[in-house]
Amino acid sequence: MSNPTRVIQYGLGPIGSAIARHVTERDGLVLVGAVDVDPAKSGRDVGEVIGLGRELGFPVTATLAETLARTDADAALHATSSYFDRFKPQILELLDAGLDVVSTAEELSFPWLAHPDEAREIDAAAKRAGKTVLGTGVNPGFLMDSLPLFLTAICQRVEHIEVRRAQNASLRRGPFQAKIGAGLTVDEFQARMAAGRMGHVGLPESMGMIFHTLGRTLARYESAVEPVVAERRVVTEFFDVPPGRVIGLKQTARGFAPEGEFVVLTFLAALDAEENCDTIRIRGVPDLEVTLRGTNGDAATVAIAVNAIKRVREAEPGLATMPDLPLITYG
Amino acid sequence: MSNPTRVIQYGLGPIGSAIARHVTERDGLVLVGAVDVDPAKSGRDVGEVIGLGRELGFPVTATLAETLARTDADAALHATSSYFDRFKPQILELLDAGLDVVSTAEELSFPWLAHPDEAREIDAAAKRAGKTVLGTGVNPGFLMDSLPLFLTAICQRVEHIEVRRAQNASLRRGPFQAKIGAGLTVDEFQARMAAGRMGHVGLPESMGMIFHTLGRTLARYESAVEPVVAERRVVTEFFDVPPGRVIGLKQTARGFAPEGEFVVLTFLAALDAEENCDTIRIRGVPDLEVTLRGTNGDAATVAIAVNAIKRVREAEPGLATMPDLPLITYG
Repeated sequence: MSNPTRVIQYGLGPIGSAIARHVTERDGLVLVGAVDVDPAKSGRDVGEVIGLGRELGFPVTATLAETLARTDADAALHATSSYFDRFKPQILELLDAGLDVVSTAEELSFPWLAHPDEAREIDAAAKRAGKTVLGTGVNPGFLMDSLPLFLTAICQRVEHIEVRRAQNASLRRGPFQAKIGAGLTVDEFQARMAAGRMGHVGLPESMGMIFHTLGRTLARYESAVEPVVAERRVVTEFFDVPPGRVIGLKQTARGFAPEGEFVVLTFLAALDAEENCDTIRIRGVPDLEVTLRGTNGDAATVAIAVNAIKRVREAEPGLATMPDLPLITYG
Repeated sequence: MSNPTRVIQYGLGPIGSAIARHVTERDGLVLVGAVDVDPAKSGRDVGEVIGLGRELGFPVTATLAETLARTDADAALHATSSYFDRFKPQILELLDAGLDVVSTAEELSFPWLAHPDEAREIDAAAKRAGKTVLGTGVNPGFLMDSLPLFLTAICQRVEHIEVRRAQNASLRRGPFQAKIGAGLTVDEFQARMAAGRMGHVGLPESMGMIFHTLGRTLARYESAVEPVVAERRVVTEFFDVPPGRVIGLKQTARGFAPEGEFVVLTFLAALDAEENCDTIRIRGVPDLEVTLRGTNGDAATVAIAVNAIKRVREAEPGLATMPDLPLITYG
């Protein structure tokens, strides 16, 4: 058996903590450090901060340098911000420290279209360091992009791709329910949307990955977000929403090739939604319809980030995207 | 735009001819030759033999050498036999001729468990030639192995995998209906099964790919085939089956890890079957259920063989399997 991969967790929010806990459960991986700038976390034992139920014997540090002064490592799992302006210096710092990186940052999953300059900068830093960086997650990273792409392997022709992800948010955590606007008035919802950075992040990245991988030109990109409004009172463990207020959102992105619409991605999340599955429809030869149940929740993002480590460790240096790597699987 | 890949089709049965026709439709590929030992085919124009509706200006040859005396080529698409004893010399000949190879031979899709010596021999020949060989198809190659494996990417734990492929054979070609035993008595069906080489080929290969990729030990492998018997008269374009005779088959393979059953693969094909979809169930964290419609028929195998060429051309020399390669997609 080869030596276990020594992993640092960078970012200890809910997802980062769940990733760190999962690393401690997995054969072949060992959690050797954790970094978080939050002064309420740094200095405390990592096991305590991530809710492991036991101490790990080393503290969360506010900087990467402090953790690396104590231990060496092979790879970092990065889960802080969705947005390039926030996470870029962190990714560069991890690469400069000689670590392979798997990140759940949505904008990193396929940055070549929406953020080409930053993508080139990270790619160059990774090659300089001889390391690999991958952005992934259940979405973006899998459900709306690499999985539909893999399904096109059995297509002789692809005319149109539709992916619809529908989540009954009543089954999710309180912060998720808040994130989709639960309890807001329609005016409040629209104001928050106008201010940006609400709703699902990653549709442009999924769109870019599909168009690029299939060799199509993205001639036009349209997106829209609308509130889902309660028709009757809706009560969850975290919210009590009267009729007329918001219970969720529907976000749609459309990608057009020069000949017309080629991809539609719909993200629907609402309290009490009857629909709670993902559907991928490919029109072409043959026509395919694929339905997935059980993909919701944070477990899937935690899993794919941890499962990706092995492939990232083996990959050529540079900024990788999901279609570049051999099949990521459990283990 | 890079030069098109020059492709030889090796084997012009129904699947091989369909692959050759599809190659002529695809950008980036050009069909430059075709080989088939059948004296009723060799010497005739390839376009005529594959049913293209137009001549291509070069003949089917009985040997690879005759085609290579006329033209050079980059890759071969191979579709002759399912079985190693038949196809192995052909694959070695293609590699020795300096061609990358994609084959629909079922036993080649994951030969490392069932045929390790032959797998090593082909791997060595490919490395000597500096070329790559891949066995693939919709099944084995995708539905019962690489696709479920990719779905485990979003799993934190995998306890059990079940794949069920159910086909309404009334919608398929006459030879397919014959292949699954349509019209036979139950005694005839059992006699043919006992003689071997009837039914779906590839379950041991799919099983091997799953166990190997997930790092599990295949402690025991069980398989069984049973006839599906008509309860009432069943009429198709090709068969008229009275009650009590066979309308199809159900084939099941079970793979056991030391701790117990880990994978069940069920292949069901019968005339008038109401079930006509594929279902993948993964028990673990999370539990997943995925249903696919539209994957039946030969179109999918033709597609994945042709779509694989690009990845095989780019790959390291050797015998590759689906999980080794970057994501195969359309194009």
